[in-house]
Amino acid sequence: MSTTVKSKVIGIDIGVKNTTIAVVDLRGTILAKDYLSTTDYPYINDYAEALSERIVMLAEANGGYEAVRSVGVSVASANYVTGCIENAANMPWKGVVPLVALLRDRVGLAVAVGNDAHATAMGEYVYGAAHGMNNFMVISMGHGGLGSCFFSDGQPHLGHHGFAGELGHCCVEDHGRRCTCGREGCLEEYASARGLVRTARELLAASDAPSQLRALDELTPEVIAQCCEADDEIAKEAFSRMGFQLGLGLANYATLINPEAVILTGEMNIFSKWFLPALEQSFDEHVFQNIRNHVKLLVSDMDNNERDVLGASALAWTVKEYSLFK
Amino acid sequence: MSTTVKSKVIGIDIGVKNTTIAVVDLRGTILAKDYLSTTDYPYINDYAEALSERIVMLAEANGGYEAVRSVGVSVASANYVTGCIENAANMPWKGVVPLVALLRDRVGLAVAVGNDAHATAMGEYVYGAAHGMNNFMVISMGHGGLGSCFFSDGQPHLGHHGFAGELGHCCVEDHGRRCTCGREGCLEEYASARGLVRTARELLAASDAPSQLRALDELTPEVIAQCCEADDEIAKEAFSRMGFQLGLGLANYATLINPEAVILTGEMNIFSKWFLPALEQSFDEHVFQNIRNHVKLLVSDMDNNERDVLGASALAWTVKEYSLFK
Amino acid sequence: MSTTVKSKVIGIDIGVKNTTIAVVDLRGTILAKDYLSTTDYPYINDYAEALSERIVMLAEANGGYEAVRSVGVSVASANYVTGCIENAANMPWKGVVPLVALLRDRVGLAVAVGNDAHATAMGEYVYGAAHGMNNFMVISMGHGGLGSCFFSDGQPHLGHHGFAGELGHCCVEDHGRRCTCGREGCLEEYASARGLVRTARELLAASDAPSQLRALDELTPEVIAQCCEADDEIAKEAFSRMGFQLGLGLANYATLINPEAVILTGEMNIFSKWFLPALEQSFDEHVFQNIRNHVKLLVSDMDNNERDVLGASALAWTVKEYSLFK
Amino acid sequence: MSTTVKSKVIGIDIGVKNTTIAVVDLRGTILAKDYLSTTDYPYINDYAEALSERIVMLAEANGGYEAVRSVGVSVASANYVTGCIENAANMPWKGVVPLVALLRDRVGLAVAVGNDAHATAMGEYVYGAAHGMNNFMVISMGHGGLGSCFFSDGQPHLGHHGFAGELGHCCVEDHGRRCTCGREGCLEEYASARGLVRTARELLAASDAPSQLRALDELTPEVIAQCCEADDEIAKEAFSRMGFQLGLGLANYATLINPEAVILTGEMNIFSKWFLPALEQSFDEHVFQNIRNHVKLLVSDMDNNERDVLGASALAWTVKEYSLFK
Repeated sequence: MSTTVKSKVIGIDIGVKNTTIAVVDLRGTILAKDYLSTTDYPYINDYAEALSERIVMLAEANGGYEAVRSVGVSVASANYVTGCIENAANMPWKGVVPLVALLRDRVGLAVAVGNDAHATAMGEYVYGAAHGMNNFMVISMGHGGLGSCFFSDGQPHLGHHGFAGELGHCCVEDHGRRCTCGREGCLEEYASARGLVRTARELLAASDAPSQLRALDELTPEVIAQCCEADDEIAKEAFSRMGFQLGLGLANYATLINPEAVILTGEMNIFSKWFLPALEQSFDEHVFQNIRNHVKLLVSDMDNNERDVLGASALAWTVKEYSLFK
Repeated sequence: MSTTVKSKVIGIDIGVKNTTIAVVDLRGTILAKDYLSTTDYPYINDYAEALSERIVMLAEANGGYEAVRSVGVSVASANYVTGCIENAANMPWKGVVPLVALLRDRVGLAVAVGNDAHATAMGEYVYGAAHGMNNFMVISMGHGGLGSCFFSDGQPHLGHHGFAGELGHCCVEDHGRRCTCGREGCLEEYASARGLVRTARELLAASDAPSQLRALDELTPEVIAQCCEADDEIAKEAFSRMGFQLGLGLANYATLINPEAVILTGEMNIFSKWFLPALEQSFDEHVFQNIRNHVKLLVSDMDNNERDVLGASALAWTVKEYSLFK
Repeated sequence: MSTTVKSKVIGIDIGVKNTTIAVVDLRGTILAKDYLSTTDYPYINDYAEALSERIVMLAEANGGYEAVRSVGVSVASANYVTGCIENAANMPWKGVVPLVALLRDRVGLAVAVGNDAHATAMGEYVYGAAHGMNNFMVISMGHGGLGSCFFSDGQPHLGHHGFAGELGHCCVEDHGRRCTCGREGCLEEYASARGLVRTARELLAASDAPSQLRALDELTPEVIAQCCEADDEIAKEAFSRMGFQLGLGLANYATLINPEAVILTGEMNIFSKWFLPALEQSFDEHVFQNIRNHVKLLVSDMDNNERDVLGASALAWTVKEYSLFK
Repeated sequence: MSTTVKSKVIGIDIGVKNTTIAVVDLRGTILAKDYLSTTDYPYINDYAEALSERIVMLAEANGGYEAVRSVGVSVASANYVTGCIENAANMPWKGVVPLVALLRDRVGLAVAVGNDAHATAMGEYVYGAAHGMNNFMVISMGHGGLGSCFFSDGQPHLGHHGFAGELGHCCVEDHGRRCTCGREGCLEEYASARGLVRTARELLAASDAPSQLRALDELTPEVIAQCCEADDEIAKEAFSRMGFQLGLGLANYATLINPEAVILTGEMNIFSKWFLPALEQSFDEHVFQNIRNHVKLLVSDMDNNERDVLGASALAWTVKEYSLFK
């Protein structure tokens, strides 16, 4: 009989550029961190090898296998059900990558993977704004795209194959903007960093109203927000339209889910000042009457640097302990 | 200690015109039926009184309280969570009607209520096309409107207040057709008996192409379908547009839920021949690629006369047994 | 998109001597049956081969793969979690037998296995005395031994490794009778066909009271029950002691679980007349006061010939559909 | 729409003598504490009034109703399902006390109650040794008695009426020691502070072996443990017998539940040095072979002063938010 309680997990955030590896205790305290360049490893085996080394080193420096229970990974296009990264658009590794198997065999610990939205939702549920809620939606507005994960009766709804929550690929305009996914009119092309910039460009092209944006070579959410601060009408309109489209998309989503709360997370949150008013107005206008005024709209206050690894650590606790020797 | 197994429930379908009361055994066999006119009782207390009498008579004729376990009711705008009919558009009784309390106190049995879509989904899960599925969507296309209920991990997702699944009130066209709910652009105004007729009228007004529909005083799904049989282009186009809009709405829904199946039920199903091809094409075109070709689109083959009381009986089994004397 | 609903499953009961294979529809109607001798196949591969052939033949005769969804198997010592028969005492195949893998690869359908008690409990939940209950205990009193399965909140409790419910191997007497499992004092040695016979023998040896049992070469539950009919005191005492021990065991079990009902199933049920009074008295005496008089003690009225294959068919619906081609 | 996240709850431990009230954040940090004498209020209404005042004061001092979400209470004989204290043996208030209703109406916040074992298990699940486990047993060995709570598939198993887990009232000896509950042979009379003292007295009476215990007027676990330190054979034997009986009881329990871990908590834990070796040996000897060596036996390392209010705070998060104004 064992008498040791394993009270730590490894939470990993695989970003497009960098990978963050953290040791997290069961109350969400980050005890140690390490980093790896994601882009240095065009071959997944090399990456898995390098990442496993870092995991083992970090585990050993923090109590070893006696103290560390399991590993959770947040990465774009990951599927919790299959344990694979599946056709990630922005990652170096194409096709279906069996990340759980690759890591578990090397590290000797149970591993869970989830996409950004799933991991973020787990983090908000365990350590954040969704604590105590059973039915809620988490909207993940990263630079890369627009994801979501909702909880049904206290559990993340993953769907039959683990693909649920693809809010960014709901069609909001028939034959609308061409999306990176190949289809047209996806919400992501309107309500994301990319969509915001497209909207700004369209607005600039559609009128000759003066705008500081005209002088800029490259448009980004950051510079558009700066122009908003200078009261630039086109910049403000671009954010408003994003808020409108997202508000409509969330209204339909909420009409289907009837959540206790809609929680906005992700890097785009820092611009919420500019899109939230239009989002709220559009949400109220489009959501079914039973639900209007009965949904909390929350902007996550979780630290951007902690959110992903905390969410990944929450995933880590959901897998059964695993040992080669049992 | 009791040694009797209660093997029957009462399933009730409260329709706009008629109420059907059935005794159903645990394998879904309807053992006896009785009827009541819904419209005869403008006051809910009178209705509850009359319905309770019928329930008690039917129970006593089928084994009595030793054999009958509980009561389930399918009725528009019912909320399983609160036990109330909440602001039903087409029922004689306005506002919030505490139907569970009204019946339970009179009948002395546990009572569950659910709206059409919820009851239908329970019926499909227990006795129909969804048996064995954990994640699926049931679309209820009645004459009155368009409802839905999806299951998450083997349980109906009811949402924080019990209002989930209002597919008919998802906005599919900003500033679109005015809906009975007061808002604009609700899917129900395009994909329902009412929506179909509106579309046909718009098509007739927009061209002067010949159509048998022009000669008719009143348009209904039935006559439009008859004209389809006669190869009437406008009639066929009306159904196609309904299929297109519903296909788009279901594609977005499925992109969020990732169901094993989408199951079409309800009175409009008999016309599926005319709208299903456009629905399928639109669904395929608009659903996220991960999900396309991985969702079963099923048309329920459950008998229209049995579906609602069977669904209601399935609801009956979900409540705890209740007795005044325990 | 598929538009076919798979409405049948294969339910299989692997008994010590015979295997029964049945096609069961989703309302629990047995549509067809076939049989196989279990003992003819000392090697598991031969058995799996022969069984698979029968499954395929039966499936093809009943609608084929378009209609048949999956396979469920009830067999002693099966573990639903691992899909294996694990160290069955009375089966021809020793050690750990990966039955799910052996059948699935041959048959091309999803397969579930469960031990007798698990399958029986599923059958009672879906088609029998436990329908509508969320927390209940099913006690399986076969000739071979004493098993159990309880439901927690509407789901069978299988435990961390799938071994839960081993009521027969709870110790009721420190250093008591030697059990086939190697330990001493297991309840199975007192409350089973084998235990009953041991008790009768002990009673015969302990006194010289007259008894018809003394003239018999072989004691069985059947002959002991026959002697009870003839008012044989020792025969009646043997059943009473079995009832007493089982009542005590169930009282402790119910004190831990607080079930809505305790449901007795299995071949020994036909003798319940002789052990149930003592069982009830002992249960009432030993169960915690909060629970006494609040538990239904039910004797299953499910047909012995149907029970196992119905339970197996209920298991079949719990696995995800599987196809080599998806 | 609200944009505030409620990140604190009130956790309350109602002990026989004292009541502790704490503000706990969602990561389990105790932010503030207050105390109340339990025994000062022989009438429950007075107690509820006084307690509510303290709750409101503490809430207001820690962010008010904007920040405090709900209240959780750990108290002997509380039933989460009914919200009542039910016939507590050691509390000043007899019969059934509707504590949830009494507090909620006064405080205006949602309130949950659970008995010691339930609250402790929630605490271990969220903040302690059971984090990440789905199936485990928590054994609560307080001075007052012996309780337990097990989790099934990630949820506490409460049973049909909320009474599950009464390990202390499992009968371990037919016609054994008279229990405070009125029955005989309850495990609590052998494996608790009271049981230990009874055993020591029996051992002293049964022999005239020398023992320091003979000189003492009053026996307590503390003095018996002190004698163990002095190598007193009778003191050591008393603890050993307690370990043996508890090991047997836990072995039967684990044979039914198949837990990942058995976690010992409560005030008696400080004496585990003296009873754990016998407990482990007895457990190994009596547990079913499939489970032996596959269960972690863990002694909780949660701080005794924090355990109960943390467990109560974990309960607080399980209830829906409540407001008089929604």
